[in-house]
Amino acid sequence: MSILIKNVDLVSMNGKEDVLKDTNIYIKKNKIEYIGEVREDIEVDRVIDGKNKLAMPGLINAHTHLGMSLLRNYADDLPLFDWLQKKIWPIEAKMTGEDIYWGTLLSMVEMIQSGTTAFCDMYVDMGGVGKATEKSGMRAVLTRGTIEDKENPEEKINETRVLYNNWHNKGNGRIKVMVAPHAPYTCGDGFLLKLMDLANELNTGIHIHVSETKKEVEDSFCLHGKSPVQHLNDLGLFDYHTIAAHCVHVSEEDIEIMFEKNVFPVNNPVSNFKLASGFSPVDQMLKKGIKVSLGTDGSSSNNSLNMFEEIKIASIINKAVNLDAVSVSSMDALKMATVNGAMALDMIDEVGSIEIGKKADVILIDLDKPHLYPKHNIISALTYSVQGSDVDTVIIDGKIIMEKREIKTLDVEKIKYMTEKHAKDLIKR
Amino acid sequence: MSILIKNVDLVSMNGKEDVLKDTNIYIKKNKIEYIGEVREDIEVDRVIDGKNKLAMPGLINAHTHLGMSLLRNYADDLPLFDWLQKKIWPIEAKMTGEDIYWGTLLSMVEMIQSGTTAFCDMYVDMGGVGKATEKSGMRAVLTRGTIEDKENPEEKINETRVLYNNWHNKGNGRIKVMVAPHAPYTCGDGFLLKLMDLANELNTGIHIHVSETKKEVEDSFCLHGKSPVQHLNDLGLFDYHTIAAHCVHVSEEDIEIMFEKNVFPVNNPVSNFKLASGFSPVDQMLKKGIKVSLGTDGSSSNNSLNMFEEIKIASIINKAVNLDAVSVSSMDALKMATVNGAMALDMIDEVGSIEIGKKADVILIDLDKPHLYPKHNIISALTYSVQGSDVDTVIIDGKIIMEKREIKTLDVEKIKYMTEKHAKDLIKR
Repeated sequence: MSILIKNVDLVSMNGKEDVLKDTNIYIKKNKIEYIGEVREDIEVDRVIDGKNKLAMPGLINAHTHLGMSLLRNYADDLPLFDWLQKKIWPIEAKMTGEDIYWGTLLSMVEMIQSGTTAFCDMYVDMGGVGKATEKSGMRAVLTRGTIEDKENPEEKINETRVLYNNWHNKGNGRIKVMVAPHAPYTCGDGFLLKLMDLANELNTGIHIHVSETKKEVEDSFCLHGKSPVQHLNDLGLFDYHTIAAHCVHVSEEDIEIMFEKNVFPVNNPVSNFKLASGFSPVDQMLKKGIKVSLGTDGSSSNNSLNMFEEIKIASIINKAVNLDAVSVSSMDALKMATVNGAMALDMIDEVGSIEIGKKADVILIDLDKPHLYPKHNIISALTYSVQGSDVDTVIIDGKIIMEKREIKTLDVEKIKYMTEKHAKDLIKR
Repeated sequence: MSILIKNVDLVSMNGKEDVLKDTNIYIKKNKIEYIGEVREDIEVDRVIDGKNKLAMPGLINAHTHLGMSLLRNYADDLPLFDWLQKKIWPIEAKMTGEDIYWGTLLSMVEMIQSGTTAFCDMYVDMGGVGKATEKSGMRAVLTRGTIEDKENPEEKINETRVLYNNWHNKGNGRIKVMVAPHAPYTCGDGFLLKLMDLANELNTGIHIHVSETKKEVEDSFCLHGKSPVQHLNDLGLFDYHTIAAHCVHVSEEDIEIMFEKNVFPVNNPVSNFKLASGFSPVDQMLKKGIKVSLGTDGSSSNNSLNMFEEIKIASIINKAVNLDAVSVSSMDALKMATVNGAMALDMIDEVGSIEIGKKADVILIDLDKPHLYPKHNIISALTYSVQGSDVDTVIIDGKIIMEKREIKTLDVEKIKYMTEKHAKDLIKR
């Protein structure tokens, strides 16, 4: 399959020019073959008219819990521990693999429709997530969120080994598996070390929640005499490629460690605000040189998986927190959602920018929407004005996944029906 | 004209039940005639199928500068004073009435498409805004933002008198005019008193910027020995119905005054964050009993006019600021955008909720969008998951203004063309 996107404006995120006006992108098999003048000698299966459209790299949602979309709008406006203990945990305990499979497919519909092409997921029963990822055509890091089970630690750990054996490098190489200790406060040191051994055995990275709440940091100081970041670093966990979700309550020393150890923090602004966790020092981390990426977290603490919403909020909120209108610029926020996300997912050689030789994960934005007029500055527009619903076309791994907002790989009507059914059954169970 | 919306779920915002499932709304001329069982004896010109749709009051954008959409994405990521002095003011000085007319129409397209039915606008050359409001079918409070002109104070003041004479109560009573001193720091006491006299003469309210930035409050203490709120109160300004935009830096004493004097503060979260102004104590004001409403501010400090975006952000941000996940609930945020907005615009007897006898300003949300599944709690969904693009139908004053996302009153293609042309001309001027 080869695709030629003609006469399109391009925000390639290649670190050189911001916008390339009226260019052409030629995709051969699953890769960007060239960008520029149309060559005479090429074979083209599909031509896409790029007029009044903008091409950019697919967005990367670097921290989410896709199965939780089954619980979207189920529990809100509650204190954190009531939310978790009275609502979320009891109902999650009743969720089956089938529930998670359908909830995950629902999430994928929403993500594709709002321009996300790759994600890093942490949930339980990840086999169905693998199946859903293969089916949808999305790119992913799959991780089995692992809470210490003192009775059967090896059994718990082995679930990631099984996930790895079944899904790592599957889907034409679109799927990767990492190891996911849930958090330092749900995994003791011995258990963390075992999971690090597993990462070593599988030669893969780690995905973990770090310093999401103030209480968690205070508890860490009580228990270990140091912050979660310092604690994990002393255990040697950051010697592995680490995706550190949230990083809300991190100190200057923590930031120093994360920079030195090349940790990849994921900012989840909407979730952090909605759950009253607080404000992550994104500006300080970016200025330090840390590659902060962006994620939505799960639908039950957001309640959307719309990365354009996160991009806007990540940019504006840091200006208010730092009382500095220059803080986290539109380009900074776009980097967080593209190249930095690709680095976090350990896929920067493959995706995150539109460059010759990279995999073709490309989205087209419909620039003809009234709320994008007049066309002064496309980088500003992408961060501050574009809505998820402006995404017209999604290409992942050289394959057209959505065109004119119609998803090609998933049966959207069936997914809506099945999630409604599973959600109702789940409540009654 | 009479309209029957059949089998619709209704969030009426009437302060009684949250959601009325599967009901019918009958609109006769420009009013809600009844809600409930379909009667046999009625005449119906138009039936709208409300299945899988949600009816709610049209959203009210209580503080904006519509003409500024011509400058959307023109100047961003700049320090406040560079933004104002080097970019916005010089280009605004070159704007003509025609520029403002087309920029305002563009804003109206965006507002209608994202469910806003009424607004309070403050800008210059408001005649075109009156024309655009009449044409679009929207409901509005129009105000001529007035900065003290020491040379010709009476001439400046008279512009509002002319605006009032030309537009107050026009458009079948949809248009009101108020008096708008721009801010206490751009109007001296004598000039403010003259504008208050005008409000008295015209028997109308006042729309003013109050305590948007920290600097403005500090300057007020230097100059007057008191905060802007205290200063305006001592002048007697709050004896008039007052729409107070922003109110970011307000103290407990200020909040006490605003409550006692029944001032209507407008929260503009996105603009306040993007311009690094700070966080308004919305939760404290609501708890005090103040009717805080919601606005987008102008497109050049936002850069959208999407009230559903403001609703979500207003709700989540207050949770983070107060470290309290219960702060500014989904229902609180919806009230801000509907009933409280109607109170601010001094239109609560007419709109803000869907109740028998009120004017029919109704929007229909398409609940069949994948990102609104599964359907656990519609109030949560409205605040946290609904996108502006989910608005399917807009009825204002009993007239169908948008149906299946097609705007009936405005030529959208022409408006896009004309705003692009005017924006380009303006830059070159």
